[in-house]
Amino acid sequence: MYGKHPTMTILDRDPFNAAPPLKQLRQSFVTPCEYFYVRNHGSLPMVDPHHYRLTVSGMVNTPLSLSLDQLQQDFSRKTIQVTLQCAGNRRHELADIAPIPGEHIWEATAISTAAWTGVLLRDVLRAAGVNEAGRHVAFSGLDEEEKDGTRFHFGGSIPLGAALRDDVLLAYTMNGDTLPPEHGFPLRVVVPGYIGARSVKWLSNITVQEQPSDNYYQAHAYKLFPPHVCPETADWSKGLMLGELPVNAVICDPAAGETIHAGRVAVRGYATTGGIRQIERVDVSLDNGETWIEADLSSENAPGVWRFWEAYLNLAAGDHQITVRAWDSAANTQPEDVRKIWNFKGYLNNAWHTVRITAR
Amino acid sequence: MYGKHPTMTILDRDPFNAAPPLKQLRQSFVTPCEYFYVRNHGSLPMVDPHHYRLTVSGMVNTPLSLSLDQLQQDFSRKTIQVTLQCAGNRRHELADIAPIPGEHIWEATAISTAAWTGVLLRDVLRAAGVNEAGRHVAFSGLDEEEKDGTRFHFGGSIPLGAALRDDVLLAYTMNGDTLPPEHGFPLRVVVPGYIGARSVKWLSNITVQEQPSDNYYQAHAYKLFPPHVCPETADWSKGLMLGELPVNAVICDPAAGETIHAGRVAVRGYATTGGIRQIERVDVSLDNGETWIEADLSSENAPGVWRFWEAYLNLAAGDHQITVRAWDSAANTQPEDVRKIWNFKGYLNNAWHTVRITAR
Repeated sequence: MYGKHPTMTILDRDPFNAAPPLKQLRQSFVTPCEYFYVRNHGSLPMVDPHHYRLTVSGMVNTPLSLSLDQLQQDFSRKTIQVTLQCAGNRRHELADIAPIPGEHIWEATAISTAAWTGVLLRDVLRAAGVNEAGRHVAFSGLDEEEKDGTRFHFGGSIPLGAALRDDVLLAYTMNGDTLPPEHGFPLRVVVPGYIGARSVKWLSNITVQEQPSDNYYQAHAYKLFPPHVCPETADWSKGLMLGELPVNAVICDPAAGETIHAGRVAVRGYATTGGIRQIERVDVSLDNGETWIEADLSSENAPGVWRFWEAYLNLAAGDHQITVRAWDSAANTQPEDVRKIWNFKGYLNNAWHTVRITAR
Repeated sequence: MYGKHPTMTILDRDPFNAAPPLKQLRQSFVTPCEYFYVRNHGSLPMVDPHHYRLTVSGMVNTPLSLSLDQLQQDFSRKTIQVTLQCAGNRRHELADIAPIPGEHIWEATAISTAAWTGVLLRDVLRAAGVNEAGRHVAFSGLDEEEKDGTRFHFGGSIPLGAALRDDVLLAYTMNGDTLPPEHGFPLRVVVPGYIGARSVKWLSNITVQEQPSDNYYQAHAYKLFPPHVCPETADWSKGLMLGELPVNAVICDPAAGETIHAGRVAVRGYATTGGIRQIERVDVSLDNGETWIEADLSSENAPGVWRFWEAYLNLAAGDHQITVRAWDSAANTQPEDVRKIWNFKGYLNNAWHTVRITAR
């Protein structure tokens, strides 16, 4: 489906949602498009690139309406490796504690990395001239959906300060190829270090405004509530409006429940963090965090892209529990226990990741 | 001593180091100067303001040498509330687990907030014209000390991106008064959201450079190592070079070990985070994190300044353990157990903070 590899897990056909095998993710730093996870909220819009226009409006001096040709010819082209991660990544561990109805139960695979090519959002905003009182940059996509009888487009926003960074893209290619339809053809936002929902696909409008987007997916969904809050008691005007990602780490290989050869065992995974922070250290433990050994880190290290890690453990025959935690450049590390960060929407599980395996 | 209140705990007379009472910190959002904590590494320099010069050098187009008058007259004046926090704040809880020799054993009081007035570092850097290849901004102070027979000045650096923010000050007043000698008269850096050591006092030179500062206090001290590393095994070229602060929260009132009246009890404290993140939620627990209640937050909320919180608990007669944790705008929360983040330098303890009290 949509050129995805047959080993992808299809969570939903319409809206299309799909996840790669966990071990596959760790095979290459840049995820091939056929394995890149897909998270869609509405049905997939088919856009005629010849009639496509991107509009820039709101608190700008010169509202713009740009064709694809204009975007590609009038602005500098830039390619950046960026990891996108759904706020629901690792939800399945939260769902194991208590049900999370109405949400896709993502494993630790709602994450992938691509080399995106496009123009800097900053350059487009500067061409429009941002009004001094602007504080947020809102995006609106062409995908439509319906809630309570109302049809609306997917949208979200990021703070203006983030939008002016030199790594936020309006992308039209992914790993060198034209952006695939399910990833936002002909144009999408790519916001490094933010929850994937802010990287709006099928981008149609950019609005500079004083407040965050009032779109359902910014003002209502994608909020973090304390463990004791449930759908019936939630005050949707409250809750932590998700944006930058917290520090996180996942063991991709070996897989949970796997039986492996005793002896020297390679353990491999990914680690991520948000904003302009970077992963600085990854620790692995065989005794639930009583003692740790430092993992080796991939040399690639930049904000907005995952860091691969690897550790070699000597495992005697028997059952083992392997735990990982990461530290970022702000010395943030992960909470220990997934039960203590449970939330009814199942967002941003960044507790220590553990797999149980058997060595023989 | 130095105009400090007699209730301050003097950790050291020369270099002068002092901490306020914990409850006092929670009395006012802006800490009066007489209660503002002091962390010095060298002896206190006495600076003649008439002969004082700030130099700006390195990768700049126009090196500058500025008198205090020039700084105050040629650049816009700005006042910002900023919390400073020592990387050793809450070290005493780490020292309770295993000794941390050679370091001051700070309680949760190596933190204070002032209204700082000065000029934006950004404006001064722009006046000097930053070279495109510049990546870090290094600061050097006039305070001197000796290690292994070598005398040198205190120093440190921050990334250029942080230095260009609109809230990093070169400050000459503190809470409306001339900067006191022990706080850096006549000029100091104030970097919101970074460990206090980067807010260099008695500032004499700013250097734009490609690499972080090679000063002892950037290249060697103020590094975070894993729990198993000790002074004998530490590779000082490694370790996490501290910069932005992680998320943290502290109970200031009631105090640990206090006996209070049973019934409705107010619990109050502060919460902090780093970079341009903000505190978004504070949770309080009476059962070691099994269940939580949300604290009320002070309306003031900006990056770089602490957030006060308050919760009311109904406590029956008996012993109680009160725990707090905070969440910041990147959805980072604190690690649970101080034992799991122990490090031999005793830096950045941001584990859940707990006080045990008795209600009667």
